[in-house]
Amino acid sequence: MDIFEVISKRYSYRGAFMDQPVPREDLIKIVQAGIDAPSACNAQSTSFVIVDDAENLSAIVKAFGNKRPYYETAKAMIACVCDRKPAYDDLSFYVEDCAAATQNMLLAITALGYASVWLDGVIRGRIAAEIGRILGVPPIMQVRVLLPIGIPEDRSGRPNQKSPFEYRARFAKE
Amino acid sequence: MDIFEVISKRYSYRGAFMDQPVPREDLIKIVQAGIDAPSACNAQSTSFVIVDDAENLSAIVKAFGNKRPYYETAKAMIACVCDRKPAYDDLSFYVEDCAAATQNMLLAITALGYASVWLDGVIRGRIAAEIGRILGVPPIMQVRVLLPIGIPEDRSGRPNQKSPFEYRARFAKE
Repeated sequence: MDIFEVISKRYSYRGAFMDQPVPREDLIKIVQAGIDAPSACNAQSTSFVIVDDAENLSAIVKAFGNKRPYYETAKAMIACVCDRKPAYDDLSFYVEDCAAATQNMLLAITALGYASVWLDGVIRGRIAAEIGRILGVPPIMQVRVLLPIGIPEDRSGRPNQKSPFEYRARFAKE
Repeated sequence: MDIFEVISKRYSYRGAFMDQPVPREDLIKIVQAGIDAPSACNAQSTSFVIVDDAENLSAIVKAFGNKRPYYETAKAMIACVCDRKPAYDDLSFYVEDCAAATQNMLLAITALGYASVWLDGVIRGRIAAEIGRILGVPPIMQVRVLLPIGIPEDRSGRPNQKSPFEYRARFAKE
């Protein structure tokens, strides 16, 4: 699938997923895209836990408390785990590293016909810690991003919520 | 160009660029890829200043002080400018927003036959402030990322510095 088509089609999906599993072959392709993202000083600060078994999926859903179709019906999830130590001096780039990996994975998810939504702020704190406990992540590491994955039931695709180019960008000299 | 090919070919280029301009049509495609990236709460916190005129390019090179071929010979640069206000409560996601946009642009740059390198920590502070002044960015905004762009002189491509899949990823349940 063409890169520019994928980039423009990717969107945040918050609906229910179809009752069809995500093959491990596809999950590996998606996570490989995350691994292929750059990281500051090549520190490779993000690691990935891939969840596709009923027991762990259900435990994570319980950790949320609230009910939302995009995690309750997700057939798989990828947890991005950050090593927060500084890359050099006192500068940390684990947030950027994790975001670049997440963006690559969202594009791969889109290209393979799945949908997802970047969960970050909604899990920050208690829920992230609980997901880490479920997945056996050492407490010193941070579960930062969770991507629920599946085939979307609602196929209406990307809503039109983009601003015009001129609102976001300009040439330094016209 | 296929998305998975682009993702695996993208790399950080630190060599010199050829003396060939980057057409504005391509720069617009690249920045549109950045605009198409997600942002938390759709806050669209990243904006973009595209630099392709000799005067501004040369002023930015001077701001660095040191000499490096990847900015001295760059035919264009894109400055990512962050609006740092919180997206909700006291949570800010402008770093993630900017990183996702940067990653999309690096993929677009690769797909179009150019190369770049994600400059962030090396400009943080004095150099970023000076670039902001040169480009007329309001001081309340942060110039966070600079992408120098051009056709690479050295075509050796991505070095093999990736870790094995198993070093970065695992299934929650085998």
